[in-house]
Amino acid sequence: MKLICSKNDLLKSVNIVMKAVPSKTTMPILECILIDASADKIEFTTNDMELGIKTVVEGQILERGRIALNAKIFSDIVRKLPDSDVTLVTDSNDQAVITCEKARFAIPGKSGEDFVFLPFVERDESIELSQFTLKELIRQTIFSIAITESNKLMTGELFEIKDGMLRVVSLDGHRISIRRTELKESCADRKAVVPGKTLSEVSKILSGETEDMVRLFFTENLILFELDETIVVSRLIEGEYFRIDQMLSSDYETKVTINKQELLNCIDRATLMVKESDKKPIIINITDGMLELKIRSDIGSMNEEIDIEKEGRDIMIGFNPRFFMDALRVIDEETIDIYLVNPKAPCFIRDEEQSYVYLILPVNFTV
Amino acid sequence: MKLICSKNDLLKSVNIVMKAVPSKTTMPILECILIDASADKIEFTTNDMELGIKTVVEGQILERGRIALNAKIFSDIVRKLPDSDVTLVTDSNDQAVITCEKARFAIPGKSGEDFVFLPFVERDESIELSQFTLKELIRQTIFSIAITESNKLMTGELFEIKDGMLRVVSLDGHRISIRRTELKESCADRKAVVPGKTLSEVSKILSGETEDMVRLFFTENLILFELDETIVVSRLIEGEYFRIDQMLSSDYETKVTINKQELLNCIDRATLMVKESDKKPIIINITDGMLELKIRSDIGSMNEEIDIEKEGRDIMIGFNPRFFMDALRVIDEETIDIYLVNPKAPCFIRDEEQSYVYLILPVNFTV
Repeated sequence: MKLICSKNDLLKSVNIVMKAVPSKTTMPILECILIDASADKIEFTTNDMELGIKTVVEGQILERGRIALNAKIFSDIVRKLPDSDVTLVTDSNDQAVITCEKARFAIPGKSGEDFVFLPFVERDESIELSQFTLKELIRQTIFSIAITESNKLMTGELFEIKDGMLRVVSLDGHRISIRRTELKESCADRKAVVPGKTLSEVSKILSGETEDMVRLFFTENLILFELDETIVVSRLIEGEYFRIDQMLSSDYETKVTINKQELLNCIDRATLMVKESDKKPIIINITDGMLELKIRSDIGSMNEEIDIEKEGRDIMIGFNPRFFMDALRVIDEETIDIYLVNPKAPCFIRDEEQSYVYLILPVNFTV
Repeated sequence: MKLICSKNDLLKSVNIVMKAVPSKTTMPILECILIDASADKIEFTTNDMELGIKTVVEGQILERGRIALNAKIFSDIVRKLPDSDVTLVTDSNDQAVITCEKARFAIPGKSGEDFVFLPFVERDESIELSQFTLKELIRQTIFSIAITESNKLMTGELFEIKDGMLRVVSLDGHRISIRRTELKESCADRKAVVPGKTLSEVSKILSGETEDMVRLFFTENLILFELDETIVVSRLIEGEYFRIDQMLSSDYETKVTINKQELLNCIDRATLMVKESDKKPIIINITDGMLELKIRSDIGSMNEEIDIEKEGRDIMIGFNPRFFMDALRVIDEETIDIYLVNPKAPCFIRDEEQSYVYLILPVNFTV
């Protein structure tokens, strides 16, 4: 095989496929990037068996072939090459020689035949979103997936297509995050639970531009993201996702309208009085026109008042401050509405169209 | 005590004095910032017993007093306050109340009387430098102090004043870094070994501007840096520093003139073939007009050639690549001269005026 690519094109493609190189694996071949120029395109593929990425690399094929090169070493070399044309030559012993200007690297490779190819996805039904929208949907929900694997479904996010809307849901037992967006094309109703890791890696590849599009294909067990010159294939998490609709009541006793940034800054300051180890709640006391936040610990005490608009009853309620901050950080609106029922019932942050809903369970507290 | 300061003035001063708060100490009072407004100035002081910092804070004293507040908690609070005026009030029980807009923090303090004051330094003889120059002198030498404490003197830098020049020297047994600068005022000859930690903390406080000045005062055991509204006092390291002049020969057999950035990039690339664990040298082969760099390891092999100007004999010599890169990174000149004698003798990188000299010991190698 003999290829010529610019350093920058190589680097761009390497950075994309690195997202699916496993950090630990019992199969050494998966620590490699498969460089495949056996047809008329140069393609890089990586696969950690959950997640696989394939991307087309700009460049010239002078001699067709295929090789697997250690991903870390190859990416380090590419990164440090001068900003110039790079030649990659392999021989029949799977030795690779990388030259760029006067620098010449020789590294051992592995036969491309041993690589584990990506599962085949029939590209049947699909939905299309802007890369911006998908990146935002992920950012605005990913924080509330569960970290531990005790319930596998909680480590993923529900992608639910229904009535021309895409709804993305994550939950960890203490809170639920929901974002909705309208789809431009019609598509059959469908539910899929996508691993959180897949979403966070895909999110890093997405450009974040509203003009760039990404297409999502679903099969029974797989999801495929097709964007620009890249496809990402991931296994789905099997099982029936939680029935969240019955948790989403729209009744409330108290509605608070508040400046989001003021509330966020105030809770952020209050957390200074909480040691990492003790899970002290913040206590919010809502009266007419006023939200008072209070916290007292071994470190000291803090209180602060924020002007609000209030409808309904006064209420005093306790929360894990982190859960509140996580939600507030991803809401773009300047002013938000918070809906409360009683100190034992979940609180909701949502907009009128329910394009976003954040449910947070309260915490018991002693005054 | 009652003070009013802007959040930004407080933050600026807190950031300065935080540099001398010990991370571990058996004396809890040293984890505090002493806030002293017992006279007409507000002063913050911290002291880790090696290094002490005092800075004057802009603000209004409404009621005189003095208190010691936990440095981490106080700095965290200040950092997260709104950008507005901050009021600090203390009572006779050393309770402090910090208010800013509608936020109110109450934290326990300690009596200021228990704080360990900075040692007194008689401000007698001194030298003056721009903050830029001192910051550069430190940056260009600090990397070659020894990390381990096995030889205390190696963990500091020699500040030597002689014939109206300041010479700063660091060494770790494998290399020596020397920078020289001319002093504007005359000053008695003097030698002092300043702890590396002091220099790296001072360096963070220095503005890096050529118009801002810093004055250095020396006593038998102490050095005092006076800059703007801040003084830094540090103990010196006791003992006789190494006699380096006898190691600095100006004889050479080979002189190489080379583009610094090309050499740095080339060595940087070569290190990709070195595992952290094995201390493989890079081998440099110098012939007429050409420097060839070679490395071979389990990972693979790399070689690269750089055009040079050469005087004298051909030579092949091995080096620890990190030592070479450390020196090259802090040299600002585009083109450098390297002087070599033989594969066992130290190599020198220096300019004609010897405003900088970097000595690096070679490493044995097998071809």
